[in-house]
Amino acid sequence: MPNPIAPPTRILMGPGPSDPHPRVLAALGAPTVGHLDPYYLQVMDEMQQMLRDLFRTKNQMTFAISGTGSAGMEATLVNLIEPGDEVLVCVNGVFGGRMVDVAQRAGAQVSTVDRPWGEVFTADDLRDALASSKPKLVAVVMAETSTGAWQPIEEMSAVVHEAGALLLVDAVTALGGVPVEVDAWQIDAIYSGTQKCLGCPPGLAPVSFSPRAMEVIQGRKTKVQSWYLDVTMLANYWGSDRVYHHTAPINMTYALYEAVRLIHEEGLAACFARHQHNHAALKAGLSAIGITFAAQEGHQLPMLNAVRVPAGVDDAAVRGGLLNRFGIEIGAGLGAFKGKVWRIGLMGHTSRAGNVLLFLAALEQLLAEQSHECSPGASIAAANAVYAADN
Amino acid sequence: MPNPIAPPTRILMGPGPSDPHPRVLAALGAPTVGHLDPYYLQVMDEMQQMLRDLFRTKNQMTFAISGTGSAGMEATLVNLIEPGDEVLVCVNGVFGGRMVDVAQRAGAQVSTVDRPWGEVFTADDLRDALASSKPKLVAVVMAETSTGAWQPIEEMSAVVHEAGALLLVDAVTALGGVPVEVDAWQIDAIYSGTQKCLGCPPGLAPVSFSPRAMEVIQGRKTKVQSWYLDVTMLANYWGSDRVYHHTAPINMTYALYEAVRLIHEEGLAACFARHQHNHAALKAGLSAIGITFAAQEGHQLPMLNAVRVPAGVDDAAVRGGLLNRFGIEIGAGLGAFKGKVWRIGLMGHTSRAGNVLLFLAALEQLLAEQSHECSPGASIAAANAVYAADN
Repeated sequence: MPNPIAPPTRILMGPGPSDPHPRVLAALGAPTVGHLDPYYLQVMDEMQQMLRDLFRTKNQMTFAISGTGSAGMEATLVNLIEPGDEVLVCVNGVFGGRMVDVAQRAGAQVSTVDRPWGEVFTADDLRDALASSKPKLVAVVMAETSTGAWQPIEEMSAVVHEAGALLLVDAVTALGGVPVEVDAWQIDAIYSGTQKCLGCPPGLAPVSFSPRAMEVIQGRKTKVQSWYLDVTMLANYWGSDRVYHHTAPINMTYALYEAVRLIHEEGLAACFARHQHNHAALKAGLSAIGITFAAQEGHQLPMLNAVRVPAGVDDAAVRGGLLNRFGIEIGAGLGAFKGKVWRIGLMGHTSRAGNVLLFLAALEQLLAEQSHECSPGASIAAANAVYAADN
Repeated sequence: MPNPIAPPTRILMGPGPSDPHPRVLAALGAPTVGHLDPYYLQVMDEMQQMLRDLFRTKNQMTFAISGTGSAGMEATLVNLIEPGDEVLVCVNGVFGGRMVDVAQRAGAQVSTVDRPWGEVFTADDLRDALASSKPKLVAVVMAETSTGAWQPIEEMSAVVHEAGALLLVDAVTALGGVPVEVDAWQIDAIYSGTQKCLGCPPGLAPVSFSPRAMEVIQGRKTKVQSWYLDVTMLANYWGSDRVYHHTAPINMTYALYEAVRLIHEEGLAACFARHQHNHAALKAGLSAIGITFAAQEGHQLPMLNAVRVPAGVDDAAVRGGLLNRFGIEIGAGLGAFKGKVWRIGLMGHTSRAGNVLLFLAALEQLLAEQSHECSPGASIAAANAVYAADN
């Protein structure tokens, strides 16, 4: 018989999952009630409102898809796309590429705008692409988890809407870590995941659809290809009718509820400032030992620090040493960045000064063992200087 | 700010979720690790083997879909169906009907064999339907949660395979409560849910695909319409390659692991006997006060007791009284059975003698208040007689 569940102690500083707050784990393990229990319906209502406040939207259709962030991607795309629809996807990393695949499987005619990994799109890039096409939908990743690039959305939005298209935004890594303004930026469909800056275990995908998007969905000529992700049916359960669709993931909803409650307790501005601040300290520390970022300057995400593996350093040995000796998980590079990049997450509850300092100390140790030259303690001193400047 | 999560105390005797065992909730709330952590990979491997032992199969492709039971339904159907494929679905309740919808959305030409709600299909029903069609796939629900009917699978299987079709079985409510023999019955694709007889909160869908089904999937001419549920991609993560697909629902996997471990600890035969025994006691108790079953005699599921609301009794008042005064949740009737049927679940950890007796005592009380005639204590005495017979 296999052993009982007894996970090792980890500090999750990869691209997600991040460390859930103890209150989130406690909520997750609370006693299950039925999916039509009055208590659960109240939890759903309150969570929807907290998600609206987090997405900064009045969108009625703001709720959580019963799957991970990728299910959120699929849900937003398959509900908005009918076979033959033109879709334009901005691709500058793994997750833009994934949207192309998902949209094609939904029958879309997909074209792309491409930028090298680590760079972001300008409004002009998009304007050029839209000059020669008239897509129903433009999809863009706000926080590219594979590169650490932070895509500005507001200026893209104007261009997309001038062209008469809907704007779909991947906010899997963005939400809860940097400002996301669904209404102000006129985002028509957006999805996130629970295991990044929301600090909740993976398993749900918060989504929001604008009234304009819902009109498009209600006016479809064909059924949504996915029964499980069909927003018109899900609306009847999340709405006042409470029509049974599928059995909701009760306990995961408890956890997400508590995670979002924690964010509102801290306050959005304070939460974003914390993410930014720990990023600044980490960046100062890494810079002090010569480690540079993969994403272009001025567009580096605070919660996902993709940095170049220094020349001559054994990527896997460092990641293995961090995990096995210090219990610290960081992420490897994906796709074009495989073996070349480390992805250091400072997301949600993981984004704390203690984690930044411990990580830098452990990294210095492992680099020294590989005879990688850097001045001992330099990274810690630089990070501490950032923290000290505030006190 | 909404209140912290603090669920009321419930006994979940509806059609699922059932009460998770305390050990399952503890596992659910264990610290999160990464989805590529060596510890998590080991948990996945061991869980896959425990699921194989539970499904009674050697199928390599036995794992959990990152969604609820309905996602399992969609995953098995969309992987096996290509546009234009003929599919035959057996419909005698809500969930057969749902399979029709899901299969049609995947582009299948669907035909049905129908039986009245509460009845099951005979091999002859199927033989007749297959005489005039040659489907790629025949889909059947083993335990119809809307009616409580227990469909024999073995004799269906022979007919399906004689016709050269694949056999797909819905075992959402069946698995863990009654014998399910994937290899012996030559089932090609099967799905379940965690929140029924596995006694785990909702959120995952154990599935298994036979080598024959995998051959069909590998030989597809078109991509699976769902990226999220594409078994060929999921196989690369659950297999030895460990290629990242989507971030696995780590904590839900902990919970399912522990739930299946509990079943193997008890032993499959003992677990099925327990479900059968508590059903016999409940049935004796209900019979003693004149309450009859909706499913045909000889085909009544032990874990899902769908019984007729007695004439003159207020359905909603009884369910409300059970919930609000005794903390007991039972299920209302669905679809054609709305207002006419109660669904009393004795699934997983909920299937205990104490729950049977408490439920009968509470029901007697509520019926008496509605002036429904029954001899006081009669149901308890009858149930106790069943339990006493064993001691």
